[in-house]
Amino acid sequence: RVNGDRLWDSLMDMAKIGPGIAGGNNRQTLTDSDAEGRSLFKKWCDEAGLTMGVDRMGTMFATRAGTDPDALPVYVGSHLDTQPTGGKYDGVLGVLAALEVVRTMNDLGIKTKHPVVVTNWTNEEGARFAPPMLASGVFAGVHSLDFAYNRRDPEGNLFGDELKRIGWVGDEEVGARKMHAYFEYHIEQGPILEAEDKQIGVVTHCQGLWWLEFTLTGKEAHTGSTPMNMRVNAGLAMSRILEMVQGVAMGEQPGAVGGVGQVFFSPNSRNVLPGKVVFTVDIRSPDKAKLDRMRAKIEAEAPGICDALGVGCSVEAIGHFAPVTFDEKLVTSVRSAAERLGYSHMNIISGAGHDACWAAKVAPATMVMCPCVGGLSHNEAEEISKEWATAGADVLFHAVVETAEI
Amino acid sequence: RVNGDRLWDSLMDMAKIGPGIAGGNNRQTLTDSDAEGRSLFKKWCDEAGLTMGVDRMGTMFATRAGTDPDALPVYVGSHLDTQPTGGKYDGVLGVLAALEVVRTMNDLGIKTKHPVVVTNWTNEEGARFAPPMLASGVFAGVHSLDFAYNRRDPEGNLFGDELKRIGWVGDEEVGARKMHAYFEYHIEQGPILEAEDKQIGVVTHCQGLWWLEFTLTGKEAHTGSTPMNMRVNAGLAMSRILEMVQGVAMGEQPGAVGGVGQVFFSPNSRNVLPGKVVFTVDIRSPDKAKLDRMRAKIEAEAPGICDALGVGCSVEAIGHFAPVTFDEKLVTSVRSAAERLGYSHMNIISGAGHDACWAAKVAPATMVMCPCVGGLSHNEAEEISKEWATAGADVLFHAVVETAEI
Ligand SMILES: NC(=O)NCCC(=O)O
Ligand SMILES: NC(=O)NCCC(=O)O
Repeated sequence: RVNGDRLWDSLMDMAKIGPGIAGGNNRQTLTDSDAEGRSLFKKWCDEAGLTMGVDRMGTMFATRAGTDPDALPVYVGSHLDTQPTGGKYDGVLGVLAALEVVRTMNDLGIKTKHPVVVTNWTNEEGARFAPPMLASGVFAGVHSLDFAYNRRDPEGNLFGDELKRIGWVGDEEVGARKMHAYFEYHIEQGPILEAEDKQIGVVTHCQGLWWLEFTLTGKEAHTGSTPMNMRVNAGLAMSRILEMVQGVAMGEQPGAVGGVGQVFFSPNSRNVLPGKVVFTVDIRSPDKAKLDRMRAKIEAEAPGICDALGVGCSVEAIGHFAPVTFDEKLVTSVRSAAERLGYSHMNIISGAGHDACWAAKVAPATMVMCPCVGGLSHNEAEEISKEWATAGADVLFHAVVETAEI
Repeated sequence: RVNGDRLWDSLMDMAKIGPGIAGGNNRQTLTDSDAEGRSLFKKWCDEAGLTMGVDRMGTMFATRAGTDPDALPVYVGSHLDTQPTGGKYDGVLGVLAALEVVRTMNDLGIKTKHPVVVTNWTNEEGARFAPPMLASGVFAGVHSLDFAYNRRDPEGNLFGDELKRIGWVGDEEVGARKMHAYFEYHIEQGPILEAEDKQIGVVTHCQGLWWLEFTLTGKEAHTGSTPMNMRVNAGLAMSRILEMVQGVAMGEQPGAVGGVGQVFFSPNSRNVLPGKVVFTVDIRSPDKAKLDRMRAKIEAEAPGICDALGVGCSVEAIGHFAPVTFDEKLVTSVRSAAERLGYSHMNIISGAGHDACWAAKVAPATMVMCPCVGGLSHNEAEEISKEWATAGADVLFHAVVETAEI
């Protein structure tokens, strides 16, 4: 069993870096806080006797050597970056539990055939630079390094420049490492495990996603002196598209979600009808046909909504991953570990995207989940108990050690 | 007649300060550009032999002396501040045409019984600091100086601090000046004069306004892992309120408008359902009963829309003026001037709020309007012709000189 207190203390220490405004964290990728978090993590890895490698996306790979020089490593990790108003566990739990796995292996003097590599992927959240899971996406060959370096944050800063600025451009070619297996432990970020009173989610699939960025073009005009019939109201068109997306998602129940988290009005002045409204629709489903059908419906209906108001409408798909089926053998190792340890468990589909979803393209991969209070995540009030955190870490420890072969 | 070329040259010179991104201006109130515009205006006033007074709201009063030391001055002016993506004429035309009036009086050696005061009111737009017409509102006793100084821009800066920073806190008590009359010349900012092919709008009324700021409280949650039925979606509630406001305004046609120019999602991240959405509804009508009925309908319907989604809803009225009827004698002097000069004209109701609306509370007041292309304003593409600008300035000149008594 792992040391739950040590894991929890590390979580609390990391949470001191990039504090939020309501008890959570704002440690967005490639900010000064991210750099500070990386340094603390590196220090802990050094103390655990791990060897740090960094690739050109800034992803950190801390290796505990195996006994067979030819054996590919087992990778275990997640991400230390957070949402602008993020929780203390989303991603961080996965990285620090991986660290706890090797610390426990050290405590017990466990030797494995395969090396074990604690991993911190850069820019999982995609909050500052879309799309999410950017570094793992480059690693898996989904995006080019050039594409990644040219992503811009809302202030117009380039990903490549910011990575350099914080001093974490590594020398490893991205994706050069080959994996024997990839494990990721994460909070559920949804309400199911808590509602079903299970300690462990055995993650069999991950739902797919489309991010559709709409740019609506209206006519900037005075809210007072522009008669109703002369308005080209991009804000009203946005409202109708939000309602339509809600309808499309409700029409595909169960197993589908759709919503909008980000909206920019321009010029965003109280007495100016917006000349431009940019917003991103986020739709997901574990069923590829359903996911693609939702996208098609939304893209089919939006132009009519805009036309009726004279508003220009353009849509760009700025993020996508297909639904993922995780590796059966690894899934079984997670389930067996939970059983062996006496933890209640159930199969679950990940509602959120994770680096494991891209890793699954290039290696056998799976995930372990623990519940979170009220299903709340991407919220500073995100909460888990030390017991939940520990149970998942125990399962991770067993599955990883089994896969790395004593 | 005024010198239309000189007026136009001054407009073009002022437009060089605080250029926009698409041919217009971004010279928002109390910015460095505003300070630069004020300096240029002061230089021109000095050159015209005017005496500058500044009040504690930073409003600039440039006086051309009259012959009777006891006669109250005739005030003529508007504002030099602009929207973030504003035009070159909104407000600026009124200030520089007032300057052109005294320049022409100088050219012709006209002496009047009453002094004539060219006026530049601070923060008419209200884009940076709500509400609009802030300095004239304090002047008219509608707001306290304290209220004005404590307005905040979106970055949290205080109006009082910014006024000090740009060096334009004057020593005059706000509202101490008494007015014989107040004239304001402004572009229509709407489509009527152009559609009716009239050179001059004789402004008889100004419609009233309510700004209703909504704060909707949802639950910040992950867009992927939060099932549809567990969402507390403040963005969806906002959409429904926008649609409802549109319906309320359409239901009160003709003579009513309603819309939303400003929306803030929080945290405004693509994969986070907004925990908070703040937006401002702008409703207007020349009919007070209709205006108040619209407000009542909107405030009655919004809570039900939010309740159905579990979203918290609070509304605050952050801007208001009642419909205004302008002074009959001054309105007649404008109409007679247009007739005398042979300009086509019609009565018109101002769709936008103006400093004249507050001045009308403490003095006889009225306005002159000229058309603008396509009715477009609060848009960098705002345009007028030199001929239109000149015709209105001629009418202003005649009405002002008549009222100031030769
Ligand atoms: N786990 C997580 O929140 N990842 C970010 C990508 C997504 O929105 O699913
Ligand atoms: N004229 C003008 O745009 N004034 C700002 C206040 C308003 O929105 O009416």
